[in-house]
Amino acid sequence: MASPFRILAISGSLRRASFNRGLVRAARESTPEGVAIETAEVAALPHYDADVEEAGDPDAVTELKERIRAADALLIATPEYNSSLPGALKNAIDWASRPYGASVLAGKPAAVMGASAGGGGTARAQPTLKRVLTAAGCCVLMEPEVLVGGAHSRFDTDGNLEDDAVRDEIRALIAALVEFARQPSD
Amino acid sequence: MASPFRILAISGSLRRASFNRGLVRAARESTPEGVAIETAEVAALPHYDADVEEAGDPDAVTELKERIRAADALLIATPEYNSSLPGALKNAIDWASRPYGASVLAGKPAAVMGASAGGGGTARAQPTLKRVLTAAGCCVLMEPEVLVGGAHSRFDTDGNLEDDAVRDEIRALIAALVEFARQPSD
Repeated sequence: MASPFRILAISGSLRRASFNRGLVRAARESTPEGVAIETAEVAALPHYDADVEEAGDPDAVTELKERIRAADALLIATPEYNSSLPGALKNAIDWASRPYGASVLAGKPAAVMGASAGGGGTARAQPTLKRVLTAAGCCVLMEPEVLVGGAHSRFDTDGNLEDDAVRDEIRALIAALVEFARQPSD
Repeated sequence: MASPFRILAISGSLRRASFNRGLVRAARESTPEGVAIETAEVAALPHYDADVEEAGDPDAVTELKERIRAADALLIATPEYNSSLPGALKNAIDWASRPYGASVLAGKPAAVMGASAGGGGTARAQPTLKRVLTAAGCCVLMEPEVLVGGAHSRFDTDGNLEDDAVRDEIRALIAALVEFARQPSD
């Protein structure tokens, strides 16, 4: 049996019942055959500090880098804080992109989705996140977009997705990510 | 004697000898009469987590909010990581902007400067930071810009600024920030 296509999924929101954790769970529940979705946490990473880095990567950084290296693609669910991605998520990308010239993100296919209480559904945060991922060296899937606005009416109070149309969008995003990652790069 | 105009300055880079800490020190050394520049650190803040917030702001968050509330204006020095501001700095802005409707950043005048080793001098990070500050409610001074590229040749190895032209630019930025903050808002 062939090895599964491995996707590492990350929620940029840390709260237990977050909508974006809910999107990641929905992705895992919708995993197509031949694909495995694991999750990584960004909460345990310290703030990026070049002095800390020079003394050697903290264990949580080493672990995140190893998990990204082992993955065939990334799937990131972002909330929107002040029109952009959360600091904790940006911090994880910054650590993963270091050191210069040896980023585990280089050439890594990545897709983005996001949920917010407001109407935009992270329409401002996602382009910023895609720009940051591109700068960090990822090959970013631009479409389809999964923008989940009005999240209070689409998730239960534990953050479980209750909207089948959004589940279909997530399925389509995963399929597009796998196809995108398998394209020859030259 | 009138109370001084109080500026709270923040470096978005955490390393001890950082260029952006050097910009903040240069600002303090160039403080005009009637102005006081204090500094705040963002390193002690935990990652923003709505569950943590709901249990009550951590002490470092309370302290940062009080210091921002007491300041007449903010002056932020940002490095550029992956074309954007550092996660730790974004995290501090996110905490300060909470809770919704009671942000200590609402209406707060803010100016931005930045230094980087590369040629752009944080030309990509600064517009993103200004957009984030605006979303958080700040009144952002758009010009003059202080973009310090090629930082290795403008700072010593301890991060002390050694470029008088940049010192003049910082002086002009502080003067513009004070004038901007004193404009009537209606």
